Amino acid sequence: MPAAAMTAEEIANLLHEVFPQGFYPGCGLAIERVDYANVRVRRHFQESHIRPGGTISGPTMMDHSDFAMYVAVFSAIGPQPLAVTTNLSINFLHKPDRGDLIADARLLKVGKRLLVGEVTIYSDGVPDPVAHATLTYSVPGPVPGDTD
Amino acid sequence: MPAAAMTAEEIANLLHEVFPQGFYPGCGLAIERVDYANVRVRRHFQESHIRPGGTISGPTMMDHSDFAMYVAVFSAIGPQPLAVTTNLSINFLHKPDRGDLIADARLLKVGKRLLVGEVTIYSDGVPDPVAHATLTYSVPGPVPGDTD
Amino acid sequence: MPAAAMTAEEIANLLHEVFPQGFYPGCGLAIERVDYANVRVRRHFQESHIRPGGTISGPTMMDHSDFAMYVAVFSAIGPQPLAVTTNLSINFLHKPDRGDLIADARLLKVGKRLLVGEVTIYSDGVPDPVAHATLTYSVPGPVPGDTD
Amino acid sequence: MPAAAMTAEEIANLLHEVFPQGFYPGCGLAIERVDYANVRVRRHFQESHIRPGGTISGPTMMDHSDFAMYVAVFSAIGPQPLAVTTNLSINFLHKPDRGDLIADARLLKVGKRLLVGEVTIYSDGVPDPVAHATLTYSVPGPVPGDTD
Repeated sequence: MPAAAMTAEEIANLLHEVFPQGFYPGCGLAIERVDYANVRVRRHFQESHIRPGGTISGPTMMDHSDFAMYVAVFSAIGPQPLAVTTNLSINFLHKPDRGDLIADARLLKVGKRLLVGEVTIYSDGVPDPVAHATLTYSVPGPVPGDTD
Repeated sequence: MPAAAMTAEEIANLLHEVFPQGFYPGCGLAIERVDYANVRVRRHFQESHIRPGGTISGPTMMDHSDFAMYVAVFSAIGPQPLAVTTNLSINFLHKPDRGDLIADARLLKVGKRLLVGEVTIYSDGVPDPVAHATLTYSVPGPVPGDTD
Repeated sequence: MPAAAMTAEEIANLLHEVFPQGFYPGCGLAIERVDYANVRVRRHFQESHIRPGGTISGPTMMDHSDFAMYVAVFSAIGPQPLAVTTNLSINFLHKPDRGDLIADARLLKVGKRLLVGEVTIYSDGVPDPVAHATLTYSVPGPVPGDTD
Repeated sequence: MPAAAMTAEEIANLLHEVFPQGFYPGCGLAIERVDYANVRVRRHFQESHIRPGGTISGPTMMDHSDFAMYVAVFSAIGPQPLAVTTNLSINFLHKPDRGDLIADARLLKVGKRLLVGEVTIYSDGVPDPVAHATLTYSVPGPVPGDTD
């Protein structure tokens, strides 16, 4: 396994620079582990995550899946902040607790144009996952005349 | 085609009552049309929707898809705020403009336990869609005589 | 709307040439309509499609979705038989009848590298769809050094 | 972890009984390992699996994913042959070799009404996966006291 292309601190600095409205001190996101193509990201609980029924909303978990995959992309191919999601598919498995969400993201394919990964989301301290997502990211490439 | 189970105003009132942190005056969401199993919802542009590259973020469109489907569920089966997403799959097609998002949600199946729908998202005034999602919602049971 | 890049007959001839084990006289597949990015394909009923419960199997409908999208790709960009599926997501809505399947495929995006479409499958003569799929196809591209 | 609800031999016998057109001596499918919610299934190579480009077709891998998940469902809840797929989402990662396919299926959720799992497909002897799928199966109800 190669070394990660960026450390957790380098990724945090990059995100703060290019995405200041999404990642800033106090935003509640913490990059807890970065290995090559394999990362863990925490989202601290906020009341705004709650939906009817008293559980954490689906869009909060979608957002967290997408963020974890973005970090995993950086871990494999370095600073490519213009990488974009082309597909996300998520299944909700169990109602999350009122607490932090932990996302484990793992890349299944690191291609030159497309990266595919899976993200498993847990409630902190609970062994059964609350959601599972697969995502594809596209890296803006040197394709002459390409407007995709 | 049957009549819608709830009007746009009734759905807005329900959402404001059961989901005050997600739907409130000034939240930027507007339910523009409600027919049976077929609705249109607008999300007014906010700077917080922007991601690196100057375009609207994927999670903003995921959230909007999920919200539009939630409204479509109410249009077909009435006030069931504890209905929950079990699956969402979304494809991103074109970069959205810096402007409002329009979501057209249409149910493909209205079962006793599961509802399936598709949501097409547009940038306001642009004919080509920016994203397309399919979603499954589960209605909390028990459902006597369920044959789904 | 531009004209279709190939006619139904041209697509049938191409398929028979490049995919003789999949498309041949008597294989049960018929390309019924080809417009630009919008096609209809029929699969004649065969007993081998049946699964436990007496209904048509899921893999039969997956296969039919994928075939219809392949034809839709040709309708938009011409003879590119090396185009490959990168993602398929399918929802099963109603149990199909013992009869022909009709697939309506429609492209949502025609990019230089990726094409995205949706396929709705019906039992012949029944208005409610039995399945709905979204697919992404990748066109092998002139990306120097690309091995995706 | 509980014991598997059925052994590989019991599952093979059940399949041969209820699905004789899909599972029979010489069909090329072999159930190689059955643990609770975790199974391995092999598909022997056949020329009919090949698509243009000389690689194994997408529908062959979709079919194999669905079959592996069906076996995993039996491993967890016993003989429920009327369990049906409600959703499948698959990503194709690498072109498979001309050889056997191995599917590892693992359940992520075993609910009373819905089971969710993921299937990773390999070319026999090759470490990188060729495809990854997530599936939902629905178990026919009514289920007294269901709280899913």
